[in-house]
Amino acid sequence: MNRKHIMKPITLMMLLASTAVSAEWQALPDVAPAPKDNPTTEAKVKLGKMLFMDPRFSSTGTVSCNSCHNVMEGGDDSRTFSMGVHGKTGGRNAPTVWNSAFHSVQFWDGRADLLEDQAKGPVTNPVEMGVSEIEQAMDKVRSVPGYKPYFDKAFGQDSMTVVNAAKAVAAFERTLITPNSPYDKYVKGDKKAMNAQQVRGMETFAAVGCVSCHSGAAFNGPKMEFGQGFYAKFPTFADNTYVKEYDLATDKGREEVTGSKADANMFRVPTLRNITDTAPYFHNGSVNNLSESVRIMAKLQLNKTLSEEEVKDIVAFLGALTGEYPEITMPRLPATSGYSLVADK
Amino acid sequence: MNRKHIMKPITLMMLLASTAVSAEWQALPDVAPAPKDNPTTEAKVKLGKMLFMDPRFSSTGTVSCNSCHNVMEGGDDSRTFSMGVHGKTGGRNAPTVWNSAFHSVQFWDGRADLLEDQAKGPVTNPVEMGVSEIEQAMDKVRSVPGYKPYFDKAFGQDSMTVVNAAKAVAAFERTLITPNSPYDKYVKGDKKAMNAQQVRGMETFAAVGCVSCHSGAAFNGPKMEFGQGFYAKFPTFADNTYVKEYDLATDKGREEVTGSKADANMFRVPTLRNITDTAPYFHNGSVNNLSESVRIMAKLQLNKTLSEEEVKDIVAFLGALTGEYPEITMPRLPATSGYSLVADK
Repeated sequence: MNRKHIMKPITLMMLLASTAVSAEWQALPDVAPAPKDNPTTEAKVKLGKMLFMDPRFSSTGTVSCNSCHNVMEGGDDSRTFSMGVHGKTGGRNAPTVWNSAFHSVQFWDGRADLLEDQAKGPVTNPVEMGVSEIEQAMDKVRSVPGYKPYFDKAFGQDSMTVVNAAKAVAAFERTLITPNSPYDKYVKGDKKAMNAQQVRGMETFAAVGCVSCHSGAAFNGPKMEFGQGFYAKFPTFADNTYVKEYDLATDKGREEVTGSKADANMFRVPTLRNITDTAPYFHNGSVNNLSESVRIMAKLQLNKTLSEEEVKDIVAFLGALTGEYPEITMPRLPATSGYSLVADK
Repeated sequence: MNRKHIMKPITLMMLLASTAVSAEWQALPDVAPAPKDNPTTEAKVKLGKMLFMDPRFSSTGTVSCNSCHNVMEGGDDSRTFSMGVHGKTGGRNAPTVWNSAFHSVQFWDGRADLLEDQAKGPVTNPVEMGVSEIEQAMDKVRSVPGYKPYFDKAFGQDSMTVVNAAKAVAAFERTLITPNSPYDKYVKGDKKAMNAQQVRGMETFAAVGCVSCHSGAAFNGPKMEFGQGFYAKFPTFADNTYVKEYDLATDKGREEVTGSKADANMFRVPTLRNITDTAPYFHNGSVNNLSESVRIMAKLQLNKTLSEEEVKDIVAFLGALTGEYPEITMPRLPATSGYSLVADK
């Protein structure tokens, strides 16, 4: 885990002050920002897609990035907690990879500044891909002759390194954008793109204060520099039955990264894009119902009890945030001729 | 398991008698045969591809057909034994799905006549997809609203049945054909498509007798009716060190299906197409080296000890059997809006 970059979290108090700004509804950009040292190129995206889909580098040969961040689904795995090698499960719900490039920090606790850093994490996580040392996984990549030309093209000669593999995966992930949702069309001027209930939900979403955190083009807060996290305390209001029912306060979130009590229960504000496709919800995946999630958010973050009408309207609006998933062709994973990387012997 | 259709296995003796016929080198057909009641249509292929890729119907939501028969790889999973739900492993090596449509029976022991029958097996296998009853998996398919229009289009109204789901998967699998290998081009007249060593290997392959079993367009025996299996006893010659070293005689193969001693160690002759991409080898995945596999086959099936030159030539020829994998676009797996099929609660 990357614990080097400990940023001062921006707290809910600061967010609430910026509500007025957040009311500017923004469409999703067509292109995701990339760090200066890793501009997105076609060659990197092609290589990154291969690495993203390739399960052979996990300890069992069964788990790829796509296993838990399935781009054929909502960019996740529909599970409460993901299942890695040997059927082991983790402790947090897998965030969607779709539009993840619009987050300024990665993981629920923001412990990685960039997708490049994030990409390396699951490889050596014992309950995810389960490799002891990341160089062991990279040795496997290097042992596949068919990968070399793709690295050569993306990064030049002698470039088969962990850093470049992570850069390639990040470059691919930056292409995972879902534009043209009904909401995007609506804010671009097509007033028929959302129905009356969705428009009402949008107004309610702003009026009750959801937008104080879920602002910006990806509904994950204001645009920030890479490495500067946009966090909120969850739950902010804990005096209700939901917190216990769904065990929402046990995970201390960002405190586990910084060791600071001030970061207790602080989590990166997640995107709401395509949220209809990413159940179950919350950092612990404990709520398998979008309506219930909306009720809980209002209570825990805004101390408000929504009417059923308001809940329905907001859920309808959230449905308008599901965009168009671009078509992806399956990469051919280069074979090792006449032997397997992952067989028992 | 489908034990209804117990065919009289065609034994090695019959095969050896037909060696002359097998010497007719055949290119891979562009289209795979389909049973009369399931002609391959575009609508079925589209639906079948979705079902094939969808892990949500397994008991954990993590295992799809593609998990073990990965079409981005050699149509298998590079593992000795596949890993299903909860990290459980089976007892036989996953056969490739590429060109599986050219087999007249399915599974190593031929216990399914058709791909339609095969497709249902892994769903309820406790170490594969781990569902108790296949209708439970189908209930999940039926609960995804987005699947209905695809069934409607492929099979008409009210068609969301196990039988049709299996038909769709089989239809998709019948499109998984890899034409235009160097060998195919060679036998079609392009004499430059194979190099001198490959041509020498082809001649050796025929001369030493490999072709007595591995004949036909898919190198899995003569063309036969669906349900009529082409089996060989493996090992035929057991008096050598290989059998013990690689534990090649323990699995009784087809005897487990028929209960007949005459079927002891009988296995369906597998295709050799794309064999460079499908290591490890044999029913128990015990040999992770194509050259060693060739040596073993010669000894166990033909009682011959090949020279290293012969082994190298044959391996070179086998490399010429790797064809062109068609590009496959990823299906979008229809979402369940606002809830997950596989979350804990």
